Amino acid sequence: MPPFGFLHMRVWASLFGQLLRSPRAVCIREVHFHSQFAEAVLTSQLKPQQEKSNFIIKTPKGTRDLSPQQMVVREKILDMVVGCFKRHGAKRLDTPAFELKEMLTEKYGEDSGLIYDLKDQGGELLSLRYDLTVPFARYLAMNKVKKMKRYHVGKVWRRESPTIVQGRYREFCQCDFDIAGQFDPMIPDAECLKIMCEILSGLQLGDFIIKVNDRRVLDGMFAVCGVPESKFHAICSLIDKLDKISWKDVRHEMVAKKGLAPEVADRIGDYVQCHGGVSLIEQMFQDPRLSQNKQALDGLGDLKLLFEYLTLFGIAEKISFDLSLARGLDYYTGVIYEAVLLQTPAQAQESFNVGSVAAGGRYDKLVGMFDPKGHKVPCVGLSIGVERIFSIVEQRMKTFGQKIRTTETQVFVATPQKNFLHERLKLIAELWDAGIKAELLYKNNPKLLTQLHYCEDMGIPLVVIIGEQEMKEGIIKLRSVASREEVAIKRENLVAEIQKRLSES
Amino acid sequence: MPPFGFLHMRVWASLFGQLLRSPRAVCIREVHFHSQFAEAVLTSQLKPQQEKSNFIIKTPKGTRDLSPQQMVVREKILDMVVGCFKRHGAKRLDTPAFELKEMLTEKYGEDSGLIYDLKDQGGELLSLRYDLTVPFARYLAMNKVKKMKRYHVGKVWRRESPTIVQGRYREFCQCDFDIAGQFDPMIPDAECLKIMCEILSGLQLGDFIIKVNDRRVLDGMFAVCGVPESKFHAICSLIDKLDKISWKDVRHEMVAKKGLAPEVADRIGDYVQCHGGVSLIEQMFQDPRLSQNKQALDGLGDLKLLFEYLTLFGIAEKISFDLSLARGLDYYTGVIYEAVLLQTPAQAQESFNVGSVAAGGRYDKLVGMFDPKGHKVPCVGLSIGVERIFSIVEQRMKTFGQKIRTTETQVFVATPQKNFLHERLKLIAELWDAGIKAELLYKNNPKLLTQLHYCEDMGIPLVVIIGEQEMKEGIIKLRSVASREEVAIKRENLVAEIQKRLSES
Repeated sequence: MPPFGFLHMRVWASLFGQLLRSPRAVCIREVHFHSQFAEAVLTSQLKPQQEKSNFIIKTPKGTRDLSPQQMVVREKILDMVVGCFKRHGAKRLDTPAFELKEMLTEKYGEDSGLIYDLKDQGGELLSLRYDLTVPFARYLAMNKVKKMKRYHVGKVWRRESPTIVQGRYREFCQCDFDIAGQFDPMIPDAECLKIMCEILSGLQLGDFIIKVNDRRVLDGMFAVCGVPESKFHAICSLIDKLDKISWKDVRHEMVAKKGLAPEVADRIGDYVQCHGGVSLIEQMFQDPRLSQNKQALDGLGDLKLLFEYLTLFGIAEKISFDLSLARGLDYYTGVIYEAVLLQTPAQAQESFNVGSVAAGGRYDKLVGMFDPKGHKVPCVGLSIGVERIFSIVEQRMKTFGQKIRTTETQVFVATPQKNFLHERLKLIAELWDAGIKAELLYKNNPKLLTQLHYCEDMGIPLVVIIGEQEMKEGIIKLRSVASREEVAIKRENLVAEIQKRLSES
Repeated sequence: MPPFGFLHMRVWASLFGQLLRSPRAVCIREVHFHSQFAEAVLTSQLKPQQEKSNFIIKTPKGTRDLSPQQMVVREKILDMVVGCFKRHGAKRLDTPAFELKEMLTEKYGEDSGLIYDLKDQGGELLSLRYDLTVPFARYLAMNKVKKMKRYHVGKVWRRESPTIVQGRYREFCQCDFDIAGQFDPMIPDAECLKIMCEILSGLQLGDFIIKVNDRRVLDGMFAVCGVPESKFHAICSLIDKLDKISWKDVRHEMVAKKGLAPEVADRIGDYVQCHGGVSLIEQMFQDPRLSQNKQALDGLGDLKLLFEYLTLFGIAEKISFDLSLARGLDYYTGVIYEAVLLQTPAQAQESFNVGSVAAGGRYDKLVGMFDPKGHKVPCVGLSIGVERIFSIVEQRMKTFGQKIRTTETQVFVATPQKNFLHERLKLIAELWDAGIKAELLYKNNPKLLTQLHYCEDMGIPLVVIIGEQEMKEGIIKLRSVASREEVAIKRENLVAEIQKRLSES
């Protein structure tokens, strides 16, 4: 069986159609992985209900409960993601849900307004964590850890603007893998890209590509195009919008709103429309302007080495050097990357949003921001957009009408007769004690049909039936729910027989 | 191999000595599962450090990071606990970390002051969840679910008083299992006790006993002893202290502080010093005072039925009917229980605290508090004191000097020669693609000794060695780290050979 059998489906186009209708693309890691399917859920929660002691029963705005069905999908996906992180030798870390407020300041730029603060109840000023990267950097600095390969799966919280229509959740799960430490260049960076490929291939979400760029190449590009250094950040943010709006519109904003000279914007335009493989890196090395910039050359040199390693890993054809990839957050210092699912031509016409599902990059200075002496620990990492992946898989399963089992019960203990509760309880305890997953109805005298229907509803494969006749003969009936076949088994052989059947299935 | 092999240790007395030194017992579910080992960690975090931009790097008061070592122990214990919940047919649910503040009010009595509120940043008033029970009840009412067997593993937050010396954490993990629905009496309640027994036996924490009582028996007892109804709650809270302070002191408080007549207190004293099995229930049925009280009789009748089922489950000898068991929270309406680890006589002398590690009870009215029309959904459940269990196991492993592997890496890719990075990268990608957990050093030219030391430090069992000679001959050396034996293997057979070795070990 493939590791993720329930994803085997030929068509997934229809799902992506929905995803692509979002008016705003998600910039992951910097912004967050959200789901476009939230609207319905949230709207239903906001419906006025009859009041009692003045309140409506609902979850807070932008949050939701996760049903057993959703939890099953999540667990399978997370198992697969974590399995990959472990395959690459990562240790698991956990940090508190909230941090001292001052730990989070000056880390997220203009997004800082989205941080949830706790009420001052006397004592420290606290904020809910906004991502898993800053707590990781704080952990490294606090414990003077110079080297660590860790993963972290946990919730983060962001007070996104209340336009729930976009389905942006304020509480969501992140899955991060990071390598901290001073190593030879590009080896950990290449491993991060390998991990992204393994996870996206393993989840069978469809074809994907990973865009790669380098912050130094971007800065060098801005410099040689004639952007004043004070405007680097603003222009970088505009470039970041290129997967949502056209170059024409971005150019207009650059000139009209950011006051860039038209010829400067056009020079940038020539670059950001380039994407390709190693040959593009070579081309940029020869570029008359870029080749004059030390920063750009450093970035290009590293990218060239990166592609060398990606080729050895057998994933170079999945990677695209893309000069339009900018990414939002301030903390990146070197290579940056973002994985997008590829669309069918039909989908592509609908929107610019190509569904970012994983992202990351190198941040060599973040740990130093926490260290009293400013000691740096270079880091590179990635974040898997699990919320988006959950949505895609859930929606796909819905489209294909796949039923999800929310329990793992293997055996149901039933009786056709009255006054058999005692026997059922003795029997089920025996099964539990043998490690068999078993259930019964919490009724003194349930009807046999009710019991068998329960098994069919819940997808329980086996039923053990005990009654007067069986008791007399010292046997038990074992019934297969699917085939409705029943066999008689000696009472004392029951556990062994069930275990045999379960190991065969 | 036993499911939890690393707990096999002959002596654990020394650990419990430490646990028992806590001046205050933990009332679980009502209060929380905290660790007495926190002191050292927290103190170290509070050490003044050199300042930079005016802050000390630390986690908020009462919280902590969980190291990879701690995470490994936690994951094993949680796997075992969740495995048991699944064996009993439970579905997994998740709820947001925070709720609307009004959802939590009037649920926790005097503990409400410990709730963390979020800052009013415009919008709703929010609070971090205080336990998993109230969110579950809110979920049932909101979705009009009348029947559900669910488990929930998640963090909860409580602003305990800042006496960190007691090692009380403000963020901690809860593991809850609950059965909601109208069923025949005592069948789900008996299953909850069976689950507690399975988990505590499975974790091999030592001998334990589960105290059982019923809120109706307590209320009936108060009534027949002559306690005014207005004082039931206060007297109940005092009874709850009997595992920490002596009856003499409790009696003194009843009379001196709560204004109870001495003879009323003495009547209570006669009851609360009783504990035993089914025969005690029979005795109470005959009790001249109690037998006059309808509520008490209802409770005793259910307890009698409960013991009948516990006997069928084969766990009756682990259960003790204990009239001193009161439990704090308001929401319990029927049977209540609490599992305590038994001490050796030496430990018993040190303290009254017998280490509560699991607890729960029946709460038939909580869901109705949320329902607009007050519709009730009867519930019964339990909470495993995982934080305390984590501490016990961690401390035990420390005492026994057990080393914990924090990664699962199976194979290390090494070379004795320079300029072999390319070959190492190709080889490790092949291993990853075959699902093998593999690592290498992120160095162009690491020393062989450094590489082998890394394997020993990290407990990696196998090393693949590639060098010039091996390349020429088309072979690879496979080395066992433990035995230091090396064998040559054809390059093309490497993956198969590793998989064979791993499946054998």
